[in-house]
Amino acid sequence: MLLPNLREELLYLHLQLPKNGLVTWTSGNVSVRDVSTGWVLIKPSGVFYENLHPEDFILLDLDGNVLEGSLKPSSDTASHLYIYRHRPDVNGIVHTHSPYATAFAAVGKAIPVYLTAQADEFGGAIPCAGLGLIGGEEIGKLVVETIGTSPGCLLQNHGVFTIGKDGSSAVKAAVMIEDIAKTVWLAMQLGTPIPIPEDMVQRLHQRYTRDYGQG
Amino acid sequence: MLLPNLREELLYLHLQLPKNGLVTWTSGNVSVRDVSTGWVLIKPSGVFYENLHPEDFILLDLDGNVLEGSLKPSSDTASHLYIYRHRPDVNGIVHTHSPYATAFAAVGKAIPVYLTAQADEFGGAIPCAGLGLIGGEEIGKLVVETIGTSPGCLLQNHGVFTIGKDGSSAVKAAVMIEDIAKTVWLAMQLGTPIPIPEDMVQRLHQRYTRDYGQG
Amino acid sequence: MLLPNLREELLYLHLQLPKNGLVTWTSGNVSVRDVSTGWVLIKPSGVFYENLHPEDFILLDLDGNVLEGSLKPSSDTASHLYIYRHRPDVNGIVHTHSPYATAFAAVGKAIPVYLTAQADEFGGAIPCAGLGLIGGEEIGKLVVETIGTSPGCLLQNHGVFTIGKDGSSAVKAAVMIEDIAKTVWLAMQLGTPIPIPEDMVQRLHQRYTRDYGQG
Amino acid sequence: MLLPNLREELLYLHLQLPKNGLVTWTSGNVSVRDVSTGWVLIKPSGVFYENLHPEDFILLDLDGNVLEGSLKPSSDTASHLYIYRHRPDVNGIVHTHSPYATAFAAVGKAIPVYLTAQADEFGGAIPCAGLGLIGGEEIGKLVVETIGTSPGCLLQNHGVFTIGKDGSSAVKAAVMIEDIAKTVWLAMQLGTPIPIPEDMVQRLHQRYTRDYGQG
Repeated sequence: MLLPNLREELLYLHLQLPKNGLVTWTSGNVSVRDVSTGWVLIKPSGVFYENLHPEDFILLDLDGNVLEGSLKPSSDTASHLYIYRHRPDVNGIVHTHSPYATAFAAVGKAIPVYLTAQADEFGGAIPCAGLGLIGGEEIGKLVVETIGTSPGCLLQNHGVFTIGKDGSSAVKAAVMIEDIAKTVWLAMQLGTPIPIPEDMVQRLHQRYTRDYGQG
Repeated sequence: MLLPNLREELLYLHLQLPKNGLVTWTSGNVSVRDVSTGWVLIKPSGVFYENLHPEDFILLDLDGNVLEGSLKPSSDTASHLYIYRHRPDVNGIVHTHSPYATAFAAVGKAIPVYLTAQADEFGGAIPCAGLGLIGGEEIGKLVVETIGTSPGCLLQNHGVFTIGKDGSSAVKAAVMIEDIAKTVWLAMQLGTPIPIPEDMVQRLHQRYTRDYGQG
Repeated sequence: MLLPNLREELLYLHLQLPKNGLVTWTSGNVSVRDVSTGWVLIKPSGVFYENLHPEDFILLDLDGNVLEGSLKPSSDTASHLYIYRHRPDVNGIVHTHSPYATAFAAVGKAIPVYLTAQADEFGGAIPCAGLGLIGGEEIGKLVVETIGTSPGCLLQNHGVFTIGKDGSSAVKAAVMIEDIAKTVWLAMQLGTPIPIPEDMVQRLHQRYTRDYGQG
Repeated sequence: MLLPNLREELLYLHLQLPKNGLVTWTSGNVSVRDVSTGWVLIKPSGVFYENLHPEDFILLDLDGNVLEGSLKPSSDTASHLYIYRHRPDVNGIVHTHSPYATAFAAVGKAIPVYLTAQADEFGGAIPCAGLGLIGGEEIGKLVVETIGTSPGCLLQNHGVFTIGKDGSSAVKAAVMIEDIAKTVWLAMQLGTPIPIPEDMVQRLHQRYTRDYGQG
């Protein structure tokens, strides 16, 4: 049996995407892994955020067999499942085309550490994976190869994937990537941003990981 | 007799324009062709979106004869009718001055395919037509000559026209053009965006057209 | 006696400013001339838009004598009155620091006609006046010298003034200047916008002035 | 005993931050000094703005001893307290990563006076302090060394601190810095903004400080 309220939580997480300006029309999706069964719950394909209901999400096992749900799952489902199979530490995944981050993806560039907020949250550059075909596992493979210890990466010409120990962490990473990408983009129009020295990045990241929030 | 709820649907579609940031003050308009009669329903000229009511829309035949409605129709009416007469596959048309897309129009440039979202939805570059006088059929002619198989095109110095098999498809194309134009615009400030190879564009477009959504 | 509902109308017009993203905190103001008495109603200084009530507006004669109201009037009052004394055709005035238009003002540049929307509404370039001290008539003199037949002008290093035959026309001009300034600004980052030929500007402006809206 | 309603006021001030687009997710914070006791009330670490309640704020003395509150205080608390100890004129402090101002911080540049709104409110350039470690007093020392008579300063690679005679003044300064940073940023993309001569800056600032608002 699924964790109680997992469908309601996934609906809440989806609604954070339009609220934070990360998605347009029906693009983007969130999935969560139910830690009691190992099954994955994901958005249906091409449905408006404001029309989503808890019962619309599709439940699948890690091999892609549909266990619950009558709608067609997101076309990124095989890639989500690939990531879950290869990253047992990941229980939440978010995909968006958020505009500032996707602009870096369109030029195929990682985002260097120019902001303490990025050092805090990401502990290093936000890497950019290559171009992959949508619909199969290819995107998932690129993410697993590229993302390393970062909570997120860019996908060339495409958008953003973020991961987390739960759905909420993955959504937070998706929100923070866009906020950071916007500020770095703005800074790059003013001149050359000042890199944060690597030892300072590590000190900021350790402090944040250890001390920030209510623990 | 018109399809039931066509006026209500057209009101709903109009409200998507300000909601998605595509229009300012009274600019922009949507029309739909009633497939049972071939008649066209369109926005009145210079009316605020928030003041529109279902009965305000003007019903015309394809020659521009007013069949229902006491308000003056949009000044783009003749151009909408021209498009409907020359494109029997089109049953919905949207016109906006959405800012990022119109910026490309002001420099007279098409939008190349740098994003998988554009490959998915448009299957190629978003073309830019020349400058035409507003108020007659001239804009409609430019759109028909330029748009080809794309769901949308730019109009030099002016704005955007999108078309669709129904009003909702045309509105979706108007929303996606602005989203794509914004991200491409952002990418062009970072350097040179990486073009998506033509065969990849076609594979993405075919996959999307065939598989995306609930079918 | 004032026209009935003039205070309510002025409140409504003020609320269009934050709604359209033209003002921040307490900046900006609108005034209207009551055509039955020639008196002017204007915003109090430094009051939040959401806290404004119809009775808060200050009524003055054209010499600046307060006729009704206990609050201190806007620090731009003397400039509004100067414009009303020198432009009998003007019954509404708006002042904002809307960001894109003010960016042009900060470099002291007029906005050339690159967009049909600007040809329609303004019939030419949007001029930029010099730098003036705030608090007296100096800004008003600069506006009268610079604005000509345009519904609006920029003020170097400062912001925007718009005028109209009534308050609503002046607010519309303030909204359209920012929308146009944004799109032109975006276009200038993409390359060199294509100027609209002067005879086309005049044809568009005449058509719009004569035919647009419900008349 | 605290001033009545100080907790409610601090909640209201926090809500101005997301309302004005200055913060993302849980970033940013506001503190106020209670003038009757000298104690400081501050945001808990890592809590969503929409989930804040008046009783969540932590009350501390100037040495950092917690007097009321069960949540962990903001990781910027030591820096807020440092500023209060060294600036007896300051009773409100705001910290944000607002994007346009933080872009200037990422390139380590002060914001020169190109806008009358900046002359009015800040009376000079908005300075930029160096890079400091988060979590201790280091940020507070940088702010005290750098801010001088300005209501706000930038922090290299990091964000913005503003101060005021009360919480509302500090929030106003945080809102105005972002608005000014945005407009100056936009102007710098159009060419070289025109500096306002220093004597004009002083005349504008004196006029504004003396005459603006309801006094």
